[in-house]
Amino acid sequence: MPILKNIGFLATCKEEGGQGAIHPIRNAAVAWKEETIQWAGKETNIPDTYAEYEPVDAGGKMVIPGLIDCHTHLAFGGWRSDEFTMRVKGKSYLDIAKTGGGILSTVRGTRNASEEELYKKASSFLEKMSALGVTTVECKSGYGLSVKEELKILRVYRRLSETHPMHIVSTFLGAHAIPPEYEGDREGYIDLVIEEMIPAVSGEDLAEFCDVFTEESAFSVRESRRILFAAQVAGLTPKIHADQLTSCGGGELAAELKAASADHLEKISDNGIEAMADAGVVGVMLPLASLYTQEKPLNCRKLVEGGVKVAVATDFNPGSAPSYNLPLAMMLSCNQGRLTPEEALKGATIYAAKALNRDHELGSIEKGKSADFAVINAPNPNFWIYHFQPNDCIMTVSKGEVTHSEDRK
Amino acid sequence: MPILKNIGFLATCKEEGGQGAIHPIRNAAVAWKEETIQWAGKETNIPDTYAEYEPVDAGGKMVIPGLIDCHTHLAFGGWRSDEFTMRVKGKSYLDIAKTGGGILSTVRGTRNASEEELYKKASSFLEKMSALGVTTVECKSGYGLSVKEELKILRVYRRLSETHPMHIVSTFLGAHAIPPEYEGDREGYIDLVIEEMIPAVSGEDLAEFCDVFTEESAFSVRESRRILFAAQVAGLTPKIHADQLTSCGGGELAAELKAASADHLEKISDNGIEAMADAGVVGVMLPLASLYTQEKPLNCRKLVEGGVKVAVATDFNPGSAPSYNLPLAMMLSCNQGRLTPEEALKGATIYAAKALNRDHELGSIEKGKSADFAVINAPNPNFWIYHFQPNDCIMTVSKGEVTHSEDRK
Ligand SMILES: [Zn+2]
Ligand SMILES: [Zn+2]
Repeated sequence: MPILKNIGFLATCKEEGGQGAIHPIRNAAVAWKEETIQWAGKETNIPDTYAEYEPVDAGGKMVIPGLIDCHTHLAFGGWRSDEFTMRVKGKSYLDIAKTGGGILSTVRGTRNASEEELYKKASSFLEKMSALGVTTVECKSGYGLSVKEELKILRVYRRLSETHPMHIVSTFLGAHAIPPEYEGDREGYIDLVIEEMIPAVSGEDLAEFCDVFTEESAFSVRESRRILFAAQVAGLTPKIHADQLTSCGGGELAAELKAASADHLEKISDNGIEAMADAGVVGVMLPLASLYTQEKPLNCRKLVEGGVKVAVATDFNPGSAPSYNLPLAMMLSCNQGRLTPEEALKGATIYAAKALNRDHELGSIEKGKSADFAVINAPNPNFWIYHFQPNDCIMTVSKGEVTHSEDRK
Repeated sequence: MPILKNIGFLATCKEEGGQGAIHPIRNAAVAWKEETIQWAGKETNIPDTYAEYEPVDAGGKMVIPGLIDCHTHLAFGGWRSDEFTMRVKGKSYLDIAKTGGGILSTVRGTRNASEEELYKKASSFLEKMSALGVTTVECKSGYGLSVKEELKILRVYRRLSETHPMHIVSTFLGAHAIPPEYEGDREGYIDLVIEEMIPAVSGEDLAEFCDVFTEESAFSVRESRRILFAAQVAGLTPKIHADQLTSCGGGELAAELKAASADHLEKISDNGIEAMADAGVVGVMLPLASLYTQEKPLNCRKLVEGGVKVAVATDFNPGSAPSYNLPLAMMLSCNQGRLTPEEALKGATIYAAKALNRDHELGSIEKGKSADFAVINAPNPNFWIYHFQPNDCIMTVSKGEVTHSEDRK
C-alpha cells in the first residue's frame, strides 16, 4: 500500500467549479490500496492509518490525475503517410477521400491485418501513451465496416483491456464510412449496421458507446439519428463526430439524443452550442486533427462561455491525426483553442471522464476513485504547458500500478 | 575512427536542387575521423581505407545531418509563464509589452542573473536540444541592453562553445528593445549600441552576427539600417527580425544589406519576397512564435515559390516561443507553413547553415564537413514528421562525439 509524498502541487481536478477549477493542494500526499485511492490531502495532515504505507517520493513535482484520451481510433492497419504531403500541398481531406485515400484506405489495411497484428501494434501505442501520463484510452472501431471486421477490432480492445493496466473504453463506430461493397447502397449498409452489427456488438458486450461520423460526406443527421436510436435500444450510449468539416447539425443531434459527447465541432453553430449546454453534452476538442487537416481550430472559449464542458483528446488515427501525444493536444488546445492550461487539464481528466460516462470512478484524485496519476516535472499546469517539453512525465501510475518511471534528476 | 553502418535512409541534404532535394542514399554508411566526415555513400561501396574503422550500427534507421537551430535567444533569466495565460485569453504581444511584461521583463530577470547562473541554465537547454538531434545552436543576446549586460550574455555563449561539443553561433542583438533607462531617448540608446556596444562586441570577437528587431514597436527600418551599417563596418554580418507583427519593410532591408537571413516574416510583402530572393537572403520561419502569439503562421510556399530558401528554427525564448523543440517547429512548418517534410528537413539543416554563413562546414553529410548527425527512429523524413512522436532521436553525434544515445527497443 503506497503513499505518494512530497507532491509540490496536487491538481485534484474535482469536477465542481467549472472548466478552470482544478482544486489544487500544495505540499500534498496521496495514499492508495490496490486500485483505489484511500486518501488525498496536505502532507501535514496524513492520518495515522497511513503510517505503515510505503512512501514514494514525488520529488516536489506536480501530480495530476492520469490523463484520459477520450477519443482515439487506436487499432488500425497500415499508415497513410503519403496523404500527409498531399494535404500540406493543399489537397483537402475530402479531395483525398475521393481519390481512394482517406478512411477507406485504412479499412483495407485493417481488414488485411490479423487480430494479433492489430493487438501488437495498438499495444505498443498504449505503452508510449502511458509514458506521457495517459491512463485511460477510448478506442473506436470503424475501420472494419463489416460484421466480422468490426468485431475483430472490438475484440482487440477487449484483449487490451484485459492485458494492460490501463482503462480501455470501447466504442462501436460502424457508421464511420460506407464500405466499398455497399457503394451505391447506403440504405443497405445502414440496415447492416442496425440489424446485424449493433446486435452483435451488444450481444458480446464489446462496446459501451456507439459513435457516428455525422457529416455531409459521411452520414446525414437523419441517418445518424436512426443508427443511434437503435444503439440506445441495444444499450449503447451515443457519441457523435459532429460539425468537423461542415455545420450540419451534429451538435444539435448530440443534444437531442443526450449523447455523452460531441467531438470535433470546428464548425459548430451557436444553436448547437446552446443545445449541447442545455443537454449536458461534453464537447471534445481534437486540435491535432485540425492541425493535420489544415482546418481552422475550434475556439473553445465560445463553448466554455456557452456553458459546455470541454474535453481535449488526440483523435489518434493514421489519417487526420497521426500522433498519440495528448499533452501536445493540450498545448494546442491552449494556443489555438484558447483554453487556459488549467482548463485544458480539466479537459484531459475529469471532463474527459465525463465524455466517457466514467466521472464517478476516473478523472480526479479523490478518495474512492481509481488510483491513476502522473508525476509531471513542472511546478504547476501553467508552467507545464507553457514551457512545452518533449515529455515531462516522470512517473505514471495506472490502476495502482507503476506503468512508467523515468529517472531524470 | 568510427563508421556508422546499416543506415536505412541517409538524408545527405546537399544544397543543390532546391528546397525539397535531400539527396538520399539508401543502405548507406558514413565514416568520420575526429571532427570531420571522411566518406559517405552506399554501404556496398565502402572503400578499403575504412576497413579498420570501428563500426556503429544505425539499426536500419534514418540518419540526417545534425539539426541546426538557427534562431534562439538561449540565455535568459527567469520565465514569463504568466503571460501565457494572458495571451490565451486574447491579450496581444504588444498589449503585454505595454504593461511591463514582454521583453523588458526578461531584461530585468537576465540582468539579475549572474553569468554562472545563465551559463548553467543555457547549458541544460543545450543538453535537451542535443537529445532531439540538434548539433548547432545560434544564440542571441538582447536581454542585457547595456554594454556590460550584453557582454555578459555573449560571454555565456563563448563559454558554452568552449565547453559543449555543439556548434554555438553568437549574435549580438543590442537593438532588441529600448531599455527603461533610455525611455524617451531612443537616439541615445541607438548611439550607445553603435558607439559602444558594437565596438566592444567586435573588439572581444564575441559575435559573428548583428541582429535588429525591426518592427513598428521596436526599431524602424531607418534605425535598423543605421545600426546594421555600423555592425557591418565592425565585421558583424546583418540578420533581421523582420515583418513579424506588421509589414514594415524588414525583408526589403535585409535584401538591401545582404543580410544572412530575415526571420519571422509572417507579414512579409510580395516585394520583400522578391527582394530577398534576388539578394539570396535566407527566410527563417519560426512557427512556435506564431503559435504562442496566436498570429497567423507564415505560408512558406509563397517564399519557396518566390525563390527564397527557407530555414526553420524555434526562436526559443521565454516569451513568444518557450520551447526548444526544433522537430516540433519542423512539424508545424509542414502543417502550418505548408512545407513538405523534406523541405522542412533542408530548412533545419543546410539552409539553416546558410542562414548562419556556415554552409561550407555544417548542414549536410558530405566529405570534409563537420561530423554532425542524428539517428532518427523513422524510415524517412516524411514518416518522421507525419507520425510525430515525443522524440524519435536515438543518437546524436556532434563534432564527431556521441552527445546523446538512447536504447529504445
Ligand atoms: Zn475521430
Ligand atoms: Zn527571435
